[in-house]
Amino acid sequence: MSKFSFKPPIPTHLLDAINSPEDIRHLDLNHLIGLAQEIREEIIRVVSVNGGHLASSLGAVDLIVALHYVFNAPKDKIIFDVGHQAYAHKLLTGRFKEFGGLRLAGGLSGFLRREESPYDVFNTGHSSTSISAAMGFATVRDLLGENHKVVAVIGDGALTGGMAMEAINHAGGLQKDLLLVLNDNRMSISPNVGAISQYLSLKMTSPELLSLREAVKRTLEKVLPQRGRRVIRRFQLAEEAMKGFLVSPNSVLACWGFKYIGPIDGHDLEKLIKALNQVKNLNRPVLLHVMTTKGKGYPPAEENPLAFHGLGRPKRKPPKPPDPRELLASTQPLSPPKTYTEVFGRFLLKNAQKEPRLIAITAAMSQGTGLDEFFRLYPHRAFDVGIAEQHAITFAAGLAIGGQKPIVAIYSTFLQRAFDQLFHDVALQNLPVIVAVDRAGLVGEDGPTHHGGLDLSFLRLLPNFTVMAPKDEHEMEAMFELALKINGPVAIRYPRGPVSGRPLESSPQPLVVGQGEILKAGADLTIMAIGQTVWPAFEAANLLEKKGLNAETLNLRFIKPLDRELIIRSAEATGHVLTVEENSVTGGLFGAVAEILVSRPIGSPTVVVKAMGLTDEPVEHAPQIQQRTRLGLDSEGLAQAAMSLFRP
Amino acid sequence: MSKFSFKPPIPTHLLDAINSPEDIRHLDLNHLIGLAQEIREEIIRVVSVNGGHLASSLGAVDLIVALHYVFNAPKDKIIFDVGHQAYAHKLLTGRFKEFGGLRLAGGLSGFLRREESPYDVFNTGHSSTSISAAMGFATVRDLLGENHKVVAVIGDGALTGGMAMEAINHAGGLQKDLLLVLNDNRMSISPNVGAISQYLSLKMTSPELLSLREAVKRTLEKVLPQRGRRVIRRFQLAEEAMKGFLVSPNSVLACWGFKYIGPIDGHDLEKLIKALNQVKNLNRPVLLHVMTTKGKGYPPAEENPLAFHGLGRPKRKPPKPPDPRELLASTQPLSPPKTYTEVFGRFLLKNAQKEPRLIAITAAMSQGTGLDEFFRLYPHRAFDVGIAEQHAITFAAGLAIGGQKPIVAIYSTFLQRAFDQLFHDVALQNLPVIVAVDRAGLVGEDGPTHHGGLDLSFLRLLPNFTVMAPKDEHEMEAMFELALKINGPVAIRYPRGPVSGRPLESSPQPLVVGQGEILKAGADLTIMAIGQTVWPAFEAANLLEKKGLNAETLNLRFIKPLDRELIIRSAEATGHVLTVEENSVTGGLFGAVAEILVSRPIGSPTVVVKAMGLTDEPVEHAPQIQQRTRLGLDSEGLAQAAMSLFRP
Repeated sequence: MSKFSFKPPIPTHLLDAINSPEDIRHLDLNHLIGLAQEIREEIIRVVSVNGGHLASSLGAVDLIVALHYVFNAPKDKIIFDVGHQAYAHKLLTGRFKEFGGLRLAGGLSGFLRREESPYDVFNTGHSSTSISAAMGFATVRDLLGENHKVVAVIGDGALTGGMAMEAINHAGGLQKDLLLVLNDNRMSISPNVGAISQYLSLKMTSPELLSLREAVKRTLEKVLPQRGRRVIRRFQLAEEAMKGFLVSPNSVLACWGFKYIGPIDGHDLEKLIKALNQVKNLNRPVLLHVMTTKGKGYPPAEENPLAFHGLGRPKRKPPKPPDPRELLASTQPLSPPKTYTEVFGRFLLKNAQKEPRLIAITAAMSQGTGLDEFFRLYPHRAFDVGIAEQHAITFAAGLAIGGQKPIVAIYSTFLQRAFDQLFHDVALQNLPVIVAVDRAGLVGEDGPTHHGGLDLSFLRLLPNFTVMAPKDEHEMEAMFELALKINGPVAIRYPRGPVSGRPLESSPQPLVVGQGEILKAGADLTIMAIGQTVWPAFEAANLLEKKGLNAETLNLRFIKPLDRELIIRSAEATGHVLTVEENSVTGGLFGAVAEILVSRPIGSPTVVVKAMGLTDEPVEHAPQIQQRTRLGLDSEGLAQAAMSLFRP
Repeated sequence: MSKFSFKPPIPTHLLDAINSPEDIRHLDLNHLIGLAQEIREEIIRVVSVNGGHLASSLGAVDLIVALHYVFNAPKDKIIFDVGHQAYAHKLLTGRFKEFGGLRLAGGLSGFLRREESPYDVFNTGHSSTSISAAMGFATVRDLLGENHKVVAVIGDGALTGGMAMEAINHAGGLQKDLLLVLNDNRMSISPNVGAISQYLSLKMTSPELLSLREAVKRTLEKVLPQRGRRVIRRFQLAEEAMKGFLVSPNSVLACWGFKYIGPIDGHDLEKLIKALNQVKNLNRPVLLHVMTTKGKGYPPAEENPLAFHGLGRPKRKPPKPPDPRELLASTQPLSPPKTYTEVFGRFLLKNAQKEPRLIAITAAMSQGTGLDEFFRLYPHRAFDVGIAEQHAITFAAGLAIGGQKPIVAIYSTFLQRAFDQLFHDVALQNLPVIVAVDRAGLVGEDGPTHHGGLDLSFLRLLPNFTVMAPKDEHEMEAMFELALKINGPVAIRYPRGPVSGRPLESSPQPLVVGQGEILKAGADLTIMAIGQTVWPAFEAANLLEKKGLNAETLNLRFIKPLDRELIIRSAEATGHVLTVEENSVTGGLFGAVAEILVSRPIGSPTVVVKAMGLTDEPVEHAPQIQQRTRLGLDSEGLAQAAMSLFRP
């Protein structure tokens, strides 16, 4: 490490000269530190304009610099779990000049994409997949007799995801040459709960403990030489486990057949490089435990990493941390809610007292799903289970059998993880679990891995479920009111982003299960819409009116059960149907309507249908509004689609 | 324990007098042992006639007797994971007289069902759900200030399922009063692999280890009094973890905040009762580690538990264990394959040499999916990842990126666990992973939790996927041949049970992606079928012919991409369509056909469609043939459905 002797401060603009990780390997420690600083500045600069995952990306800068310094990517495979922390990886792998376009339409993705760079070896977005993928890479390497390292970089939060544990079990059992870098910031997205987290956050450095460790070691040394190989192996395993536990409490992984090394200060480049060089030549499962600080290098983000987890693109000003006093303010907010997520959060608060059986559950997204205030006020009825969507749903099933009213708030895209639990534990048992499906439809800058584009299709497959989508914030509240009354499973899907802002109709009628509404009567065609597409559909009908086409506009409200009678009556009256949904046109609203229409008896009036919605083509990251326009889901696009029904 | 003094052998027919667990609590040990013996005999008697899960149920008899002796069900909640091991529980909870109808139509379910008994507190079927459900029950108890125990009984195999680990993490973190009974038979369905399993199967009782433990304890006792509470707590945690590890290697759970007790001989009723009484009053997460032998009490099943895992209903004779020599026989079997599963297994063997990139993956079902011979012959290309469907799919994604040809064989119903991984890791990245979807459609005696009734619907939602279903064993082979050539994700779904036995057509044509076939021409209506429903549809067409109706019969082969042209051409020619699938009529073949037909331009000929398949109504356990008849999926039912198209 002779080249790591101290040097005077170095000029900036190192980043300009980095075209690949190769270019950082001849830098000395001082330059590496300078480079990390430049990377931080660049991340802050771009995220403050474009939005993005600031805190996690800042926290991982030094680790990523060290990884690319020590390992030889892309020959060595470095797989980042989730991928939202890997901006530094983008900057070091030839994407500095494009970085200003991060998360913009046509620009760099906010996650890792094989299409974007050969250094992105596995596409990510959802949590906890990296170890499984790494096992795949390591297995191929060994089958082909290749010689390179496979490194999975995973956060402490992602470790609570069941599939990460499935993969660790597999890797530990096979004793694969695999490096697992635990990027431990003692916080996944929300500060994570659960036993793993408690062990990780215990600091075990007291002198007594170290002397205990010595005693154990001495005992081991004394008894080891006296017996055969089997006993020695047992002791090695025992020693490993205890060492892992005693040096750091992260014994879970040590027990699982991983050699534990750490904890290492994740912001000390010299130590990081030394540790990575040390583990590089261990040909077995190794866990390197790295402690990092979310938001490192940007004090507002260090102090309030939750607020800086995922930043939307600011309208005008660069992001400012929210005032904590505002976060902790009164439970009766005066201003109207700004997002659908807030409407949901307020609904829970409003009903928490009169419905004492109401229990809120989140999978590491208490703030993202609008539950933070409920968690603060009703801690005994609020559960953050970690990044554990499967468990969240079945846990809710147990609560429902016990007579409670559990509401699981989960992003549509992550709900895919719990499809089997929804079916097997909730639907088949017909249990009153309410699923609040946030971020349904197009999500904007997070791109293809994060759209909630399938939930209408897969929720519709579940027996006993009532599945709704509100046209606006007022209907959303009515739907949750209704959900509390239904004695069976309910899912309500609503979009990311701002509420409609429309005034409440004078006297809203209570909703009836399976009943849609006619928003606008018309004789020439029927626009059948659901959820966030209803008001754009209504506006499209207004545009069409100017062109002399009278479009009956239906707000279907329920995808299950669907308003069969209304659909048939209106479709037969107009003969032309446009279905509109922010969901795949496969198996969703369009599919449901098609199933109804083709089942009509012989001699029924002909109806032709056109479907607007998501297709198999990925919808790349861009602002939601651009994505909607591109898919023709805005009022102009819908009006055009309606008119095309009349062209041969 | 004075009533446990030795008594002379007692007469049989104790079981007759057991109407509820209450009735066993006044029995002495000797009678309890006799009762367990009677239960074993009854299980063997009934399973040898009806089929069922023999080995696992025999292994759990003593444990279940002890649980019902010590705990006060149904006030205390006993949740059995999977539920296939709980026949003794059925016999002790008032279902002895009905037990002869186990798994028969109208008789007792082979799993646990709340509809069946108040002692079945959570419906089961799929693995690894019990701890999540138990957390739900325990949470409700604590919220309501109730006072009862919650016990989850889980096998070592089910522990490898990610959601079990998610729940353990949650339970350990919250320190809930929860008893986890680990029914460790060192074998899930296949002998399970992975690190957890290795730890569980290590025996650590050597005197050196015990002396090491003593040394650790002495050190602890010496240092403990000298410091404050925080340090003591750390030591307690350390001691707990080490104790768990040293007494038994199952430190994984001990680390996670569970108090570890065991291992206990799971066939020693006295010890079991003592241990359960001991843990009964610990108000925290406790793991009781119980060692059992699968098939205990029935030597053929003890010796070959795999063969006795799930027994089909024998045609005539009671089950006989297969000859191990037969199992290990030549790799070139002479007799034709008897089941679709065997066809798959043979295909792999036939292609293993010429396609060295072929890798087989199973989630604890190597025998169930026909992979055992491949595992024996190509151990380096065969991976059993444990009950870990999520990891299996993403592991395969990693292998595919590395240029391999992974084939993941999985039951349709369990594939639901990996829906998100199929989408996020395989489909979005367009990776050549082949999913062999076994047990698709109706599965017979395992009932509603196990039907593969949704895969056509959910696989069709995945971008880039090619999804096929063969009409018979010959086409199945052609589909797998094709799958090896497709450079993208493929799923092939095929049924449980015997092959068609039809002779191979003289010159089978290679398949073309997205191309169906006309099996029989006709002008009056079109029957559109896929997979196992194709030949019944063809026979229905023959029946219809006798009644003067000419039914064109299509074998669609692909649900994605669907043969749009063929569907439209035939449907417009006949004007009447019957879709036939062993899948939900929501979003499956019917949905796909409906989507195509309603999208035709204005002025297209009218077509009316009737759908035959599964609905939201659960299809209860019964032989497959009865289930098919009940749903009208046999040739007579299909002919009738076709005729109904012509009735007003």
